[in-house]
Amino acid sequence: MAKKKAVVLLSGGVDSSTAAAIAKKKGFELYALTFRYGQRHEREVEAAKKVAAFLKVKEHLTVDFNLRAIGGSALTAEIDVPKGRSTKEIGHGIPVTYVPARNTIFLSFALALAEKIKAEDLFFGANILDYSGYPDCRPEYIEAFERMANLATKAGVEGKSRIKIHTPLIRMTKAEIIRKGLELGVDYSLTWSCYDPTREGLACSLCDSCQLRLKGFKEAGATDPLPYA
Amino acid sequence: MAKKKAVVLLSGGVDSSTAAAIAKKKGFELYALTFRYGQRHEREVEAAKKVAAFLKVKEHLTVDFNLRAIGGSALTAEIDVPKGRSTKEIGHGIPVTYVPARNTIFLSFALALAEKIKAEDLFFGANILDYSGYPDCRPEYIEAFERMANLATKAGVEGKSRIKIHTPLIRMTKAEIIRKGLELGVDYSLTWSCYDPTREGLACSLCDSCQLRLKGFKEAGATDPLPYA
Repeated sequence: MAKKKAVVLLSGGVDSSTAAAIAKKKGFELYALTFRYGQRHEREVEAAKKVAAFLKVKEHLTVDFNLRAIGGSALTAEIDVPKGRSTKEIGHGIPVTYVPARNTIFLSFALALAEKIKAEDLFFGANILDYSGYPDCRPEYIEAFERMANLATKAGVEGKSRIKIHTPLIRMTKAEIIRKGLELGVDYSLTWSCYDPTREGLACSLCDSCQLRLKGFKEAGATDPLPYA
Repeated sequence: MAKKKAVVLLSGGVDSSTAAAIAKKKGFELYALTFRYGQRHEREVEAAKKVAAFLKVKEHLTVDFNLRAIGGSALTAEIDVPKGRSTKEIGHGIPVTYVPARNTIFLSFALALAEKIKAEDLFFGANILDYSGYPDCRPEYIEAFERMANLATKAGVEGKSRIKIHTPLIRMTKAEIIRKGLELGVDYSLTWSCYDPTREGLACSLCDSCQLRLKGFKEAGATDPLPYA
């Protein structure tokens, strides 16, 4: 029997790479989708390519868009990435790295791809614990997107739409995510998380993303294979 | 008092231009948003620029993305645009010009812009009468998007989100839309609708979009100012 197809949002970070490995473990044929949208560096996209190859995805698509034209975040505009905050601080409020409607845009493209390839399953590494401040990682948001998605497609008109957005990591801590990934054989040396790498290409170890990652590996009792400054 | 801001999806066609004129008439300060996404020609984007200038919008943003990478429609891929269908035929079923999840992608970017500029009102020229086959023009879809949008933003987390998607044309015939636009002083010579213009730059008069437009002007008792083959 042919494998069921799944669209996997793959940023090349720990969460999306683990979510993709979970989809693969569940027996889906993976169609990975990565976005170039005016991030500060290409490193994330390169990491996504490596992870996609490692997971032997059926296809890896990259969609480019210029969110910089809209702006509004340290990840796309000229706002400084915060450094040296504690993970407790990171977990509260909406960070300046929040990109307006970013996940809605990502999921919309994933929906387009799903409709094109006739997939019903979308895997999305959203997580509410580490970044409680991101509105578009909350379960009620995911449910509302899923409901909208099932009205948005051709199959929706015929009442046959069965789009399911899987968020297997939504209530997991970073340590639990890493443990799960290691159990599934994910090679985290291929992933990338740092918002602001050094000129030598090392992870900065101070941005929110590095801090959460390092804390996660420590709590998982594992060693992060990435090179840090 | 400062005018309320509204994001207006502006493709440069009859519907979106009329919707924008309605938003202006209602007293909003307009932020027009146009997409380049692998259409067959730049003509639509040029029309959108002219209409935006005509309506004296505050800002006109253009977002580019490569939906061609995803494909799945005569408007973005190498499928022939249908010609010479009657408007009755056009009104039934989902046309090959349907782009998967296109309106969801458009509205997602509009939501990002709305969040950035702190606008709560989005104007979208969706219409169900002429193209009954498009799933993402139906009122139930629009409502589901609006509900999702109000959970997707920073304001949503604080329970203060009041995103409203206005679809003033949703139940109007093309003739009613044109009459309304003429009443508001819209210069339809600036707009563009044809999916497949001739090499000389004339509207083909045979594609679904030309047929609906011509029929609309005829029923409105008006003359379409565009040059046709």
